[in-house]
Amino acid sequence: MNLITELKNRIDQGGLWGKDISLSRNQYLKVKGSVDTNLYYVVNGTLRIFLDNNLEEHTIRFGYQDNFIAALDTFISEKPSDFYIQALKKCELKVVPKKRFVTFMEGDRDNLLLWHKIMEQLIFQQIEREKDILISSPLERYERVLKRSPQLFQEIPSKYIASYLRMSPETLSRLKKP
Amino acid sequence: MNLITELKNRIDQGGLWGKDISLSRNQYLKVKGSVDTNLYYVVNGTLRIFLDNNLEEHTIRFGYQDNFIAALDTFISEKPSDFYIQALKKCELKVVPKKRFVTFMEGDRDNLLLWHKIMEQLIFQQIEREKDILISSPLERYERVLKRSPQLFQEIPSKYIASYLRMSPETLSRLKKP
Repeated sequence: MNLITELKNRIDQGGLWGKDISLSRNQYLKVKGSVDTNLYYVVNGTLRIFLDNNLEEHTIRFGYQDNFIAALDTFISEKPSDFYIQALKKCELKVVPKKRFVTFMEGDRDNLLLWHKIMEQLIFQQIEREKDILISSPLERYERVLKRSPQLFQEIPSKYIASYLRMSPETLSRLKKP
Repeated sequence: MNLITELKNRIDQGGLWGKDISLSRNQYLKVKGSVDTNLYYVVNGTLRIFLDNNLEEHTIRFGYQDNFIAALDTFISEKPSDFYIQALKKCELKVVPKKRFVTFMEGDRDNLLLWHKIMEQLIFQQIEREKDILISSPLERYERVLKRSPQLFQEIPSKYIASYLRMSPETLSRLKKP
């Protein structure tokens, strides 16, 4: 069983779910300047997390069906964050409020060890993402991400993949040609 | 007491320290392609972590006196990593081998909670770093990092700060002028 499934099962067992949320395509779950300490489970749909910086958008993460998504900066700090979270398709989400989650995860050694493994995976993924951003060759960035996240190229519109890869949609389109 | 001091005290109490290491200026602690699962405590000196990508170096982290440093990708995965760790000054380091560290940290609820808080802080710092890298204005990148890490500008030679900030040494020098 992978870590995500295991986490979902524990949340089920602990009865931690709050309300359900439905989003229509392009609707915002979170906008710049807001605090959001929820953890979201994507029942179906896809989402993206992005920053806008002087009118330039940087897409930095995606949320997929059967996965969790959160604005991790505000989840951790409980302060306002610059991230936007937007639905790319119609989405159904289940919400886990942070306080309930933390109390449950800290209440039990097995839960703590699971949460610990997930954090370790997050740290590792963030380092890989940092390497991706710093690599100057668009082809190399494309190939690294294609290898690591083939799902991305199945489910996400090209313009957001291009933003995530820090290249123009035209460059991405050229790289995708066999 | 901050988290770093607290971690160091626990490692003291647990008797986890392995050997001591001395590095001369510019000496490498780790090179590309190697596995290194040690956690290092910097007794004195400064270090940098960097990547080289087609002969272009990207400095991504610094290690300071009274702080810990590790190549987190290989620490977590136990596989070879592309990171280099290099001493920028003469350094004295204390080593904590991973296995000993993990066994100790997982053996006690308070240790687990401490390790947990440190990981949370790491995740938060990595998100801030990702934002830094994506911001296109050199001035804004400079100001964010100056505010967050004033220590950097006291202790690290300008050429490595410029690399960390993704700008030329000339641009950094211009921005530093009052």
